[in-house]
Amino acid sequence: MLRRGPRFASGVLRGLAQVMFLDSARAGAVFALALWTADWRYGAYALGGAALGTGAARLLGAPHDRVRAGLEGFNSCLTALCVAVFLGAGRPATVVLAAGACLVVTVVTAAVIRLLQVWGLPALTLPYCLLAGAVTVAAPAFRRIWPQGHSIAALPGAASGPTVLRWKDVAGAFFRNVSQVFFLEQWQAGVLLLAGLFLAGRVAGWVACAGSATGILTAWALGTPAARIADGTMGYNAVLVALALCGVFLAATRTTLPYALLGAATATALTPAVAALLAPSGGHPFTWPFVLTTLGFLAAARSFPHVTDPTRRRTSSRSAPSLHGDQAAAD
Amino acid sequence: MLRRGPRFASGVLRGLAQVMFLDSARAGAVFALALWTADWRYGAYALGGAALGTGAARLLGAPHDRVRAGLEGFNSCLTALCVAVFLGAGRPATVVLAAGACLVVTVVTAAVIRLLQVWGLPALTLPYCLLAGAVTVAAPAFRRIWPQGHSIAALPGAASGPTVLRWKDVAGAFFRNVSQVFFLEQWQAGVLLLAGLFLAGRVAGWVACAGSATGILTAWALGTPAARIADGTMGYNAVLVALALCGVFLAATRTTLPYALLGAATATALTPAVAALLAPSGGHPFTWPFVLTTLGFLAAARSFPHVTDPTRRRTSSRSAPSLHGDQAAAD
Amino acid sequence: MLRRGPRFASGVLRGLAQVMFLDSARAGAVFALALWTADWRYGAYALGGAALGTGAARLLGAPHDRVRAGLEGFNSCLTALCVAVFLGAGRPATVVLAAGACLVVTVVTAAVIRLLQVWGLPALTLPYCLLAGAVTVAAPAFRRIWPQGHSIAALPGAASGPTVLRWKDVAGAFFRNVSQVFFLEQWQAGVLLLAGLFLAGRVAGWVACAGSATGILTAWALGTPAARIADGTMGYNAVLVALALCGVFLAATRTTLPYALLGAATATALTPAVAALLAPSGGHPFTWPFVLTTLGFLAAARSFPHVTDPTRRRTSSRSAPSLHGDQAAAD
Repeated sequence: MLRRGPRFASGVLRGLAQVMFLDSARAGAVFALALWTADWRYGAYALGGAALGTGAARLLGAPHDRVRAGLEGFNSCLTALCVAVFLGAGRPATVVLAAGACLVVTVVTAAVIRLLQVWGLPALTLPYCLLAGAVTVAAPAFRRIWPQGHSIAALPGAASGPTVLRWKDVAGAFFRNVSQVFFLEQWQAGVLLLAGLFLAGRVAGWVACAGSATGILTAWALGTPAARIADGTMGYNAVLVALALCGVFLAATRTTLPYALLGAATATALTPAVAALLAPSGGHPFTWPFVLTTLGFLAAARSFPHVTDPTRRRTSSRSAPSLHGDQAAAD
Repeated sequence: MLRRGPRFASGVLRGLAQVMFLDSARAGAVFALALWTADWRYGAYALGGAALGTGAARLLGAPHDRVRAGLEGFNSCLTALCVAVFLGAGRPATVVLAAGACLVVTVVTAAVIRLLQVWGLPALTLPYCLLAGAVTVAAPAFRRIWPQGHSIAALPGAASGPTVLRWKDVAGAFFRNVSQVFFLEQWQAGVLLLAGLFLAGRVAGWVACAGSATGILTAWALGTPAARIADGTMGYNAVLVALALCGVFLAATRTTLPYALLGAATATALTPAVAALLAPSGGHPFTWPFVLTTLGFLAAARSFPHVTDPTRRRTSSRSAPSLHGDQAAAD
Repeated sequence: MLRRGPRFASGVLRGLAQVMFLDSARAGAVFALALWTADWRYGAYALGGAALGTGAARLLGAPHDRVRAGLEGFNSCLTALCVAVFLGAGRPATVVLAAGACLVVTVVTAAVIRLLQVWGLPALTLPYCLLAGAVTVAAPAFRRIWPQGHSIAALPGAASGPTVLRWKDVAGAFFRNVSQVFFLEQWQAGVLLLAGLFLAGRVAGWVACAGSATGILTAWALGTPAARIADGTMGYNAVLVALALCGVFLAATRTTLPYALLGAATATALTPAVAALLAPSGGHPFTWPFVLTTLGFLAAARSFPHVTDPTRRRTSSRSAPSLHGDQAAAD
């Protein structure tokens, strides 16, 4: 028990870190701190979710190395957090539902891994997107779950509001693009999360910064209202795509960086498309733009020898260590 | 002709039985009786649909063993029934459209089998869901097809109505969860269908009962209005998932039963999510929740050795004989 | 440079021709003429799109034979054209967005090819459908992109208007079913495009005629309002399906022709279904009905020996030469 306990705790913290593709318990602890300072209940949901997912995977007999690296915890961490954010963190019904969702997301994770294995693609946060989507879209039909009086389903409208960005907007957006990965609106949380990334590796930190900047630039160039850029909801997918395509699933090189930033720009433009597709049903984009863009750009990468030369697999990206890679290398 | 005729009739009856995964002409005859007593026209559409699908598959040269086991009949049976229910059983235009849909669903079935073969997954009622979905969503655009004056597309709203279940509601829901698989609202039809299941095998009968009870319990726990539980529309997917995951595609054991019931609960919670996703276009959930949940849980099952031990393939589930299995074993 | 220039130009023209599955620079030149006479700006966007896609694919290192045959140009050609049609051809923002979309569609094409390779299925215009869908659905969220004041998202309504077809409607629909593939409403453009098809091969020309006629007949039989048939928006998918299934991916024989025309009828009936699914988000069917139907019917074809005898692969369809086939033969 003495040796099992700490190992389990390490797996849970790594589950938080794996949301940003980091296989590091220390980074996970910094992430937990960021959540805790923003709202202690969010910290509790995130840690509890990661613990439940990790525990359920161990119980069902999932591969040990996946469990230890935190790869069975990040989807359940985000799922629990999402349930808390959308259905009210303080209600007992939310706690029970979040626990049930963490159990089911473990099964969904195993299914998604098997389906995507055919193409040698990683599962990313697709299980979380599927489950969080189902929960939030179904919620209004259940009276014990839904706190509001009416459904939020609506036809998507055209954007309004000024598009002129002030420096304050840009600075806020830069950090909130990182914090919104965990549904946090406080820019200070973004600073802490970014610190966690730099702690795990300098490359990961700089790539996240480049992704956030690309997200802001793309959203501004297309004419997104300034308020939507400033709150970080247009750019968190760009940060994740940049990390995934430059340093995690593709090595961080001079040719993959522009490719990753093209992906980050694509995910930014894709965000309102996914939002519009789900809005009439009451759904949210979550990390769908990141998942779709990353899977697409990864599947395409192997056809582009000028981007990914055949020697890339031997290039180990030491600065951003991750076990996600063993899925990508399965082909 | 003398020998061909009865064999074709047996294939058609097995087509009805395969809606519940049974390879039994006798169970199919009981199912036909249940439909006939509810509304003779529904019985005619179901039998006609199964006959057309089976005939078309034979004509196009589909594998003989599939045709004989009724595996080419259950999707067309449900498709014809669905067209009749949604567009009016008594109109000549409905008859022609149902016949055309049965021809196309045979092609869709072959396509879905080939697409899912990559993962060794069975086609289930996915072809029916695709075709019934297309027909009902497209119908308002065609003036010879659509009987009503306006489209039923609407934004999904929040649930209303009391959530307190009376015993009468529970008893009604228990049987209607079975009968709604065939779009029947009469609980007596559910009794007959359940009798057909017990006739084919005791395990199948008890698993269907457990699935129906799980559906009721899940829907009540989440706070579904009592009226929606009582009419069976929240629970028919749970019955199908329980049958599929305990006795048909996974052997009926002590570990697969809780796994199957977790699946049944998932499908129940998923039902209003699918309904909300399709409502703005005028669509219906049909058996999408069953298809999505079963495919997910089957794909995941192989990653969980604690649920499905490696000896399971040798365990033949004699009480619920089915040829669906030969698709699942294709990997 | 002297030798590279003309080869590139030939690849670009073939990109236009490949929209109709033709590997012929001459047919591409006739198609360009058809676009140019309808609206010179559409001609410029189509040629520019094909050039950008072909160039980007070469830059990223896509296979040479694909680039040369125009298979890297037809999706970007349609994407550029679509952006121009929906966001206004004359605005500078449209030009920049179209160029960016052509770059991204090259990546999406590589991804789709890799995903569908598992089943030996061709990519068709799926990359274009994905990108054009994302752009048009996301557009209202971007103030520099969206020219109108409000979003076009709406719940789909039931059809209205007379269903009686006059000969003038039929004749107009016959040619507009071809011209709408390129978003052109002028029937004269359809005559030119059809001339291009006959130029490349008699079989391709006649099959396109049969597909157009099937589309008209199906739409009329189902009760589509005459105005919607006459403008060609119900039938252009039927033309593409007929071409794809009779002469391109399946050999043009006596048994594949009725199979292809069943596919053409299916795509016609599917068109309002896709339109209804996307309408609440502000989306359009584009060539989704063609893509879905063709992929389904191709995947199914191999299961039907009575349709496609085992000798078909040796039958070369000389009258409709195409390199699409090398994707289909990958299995």
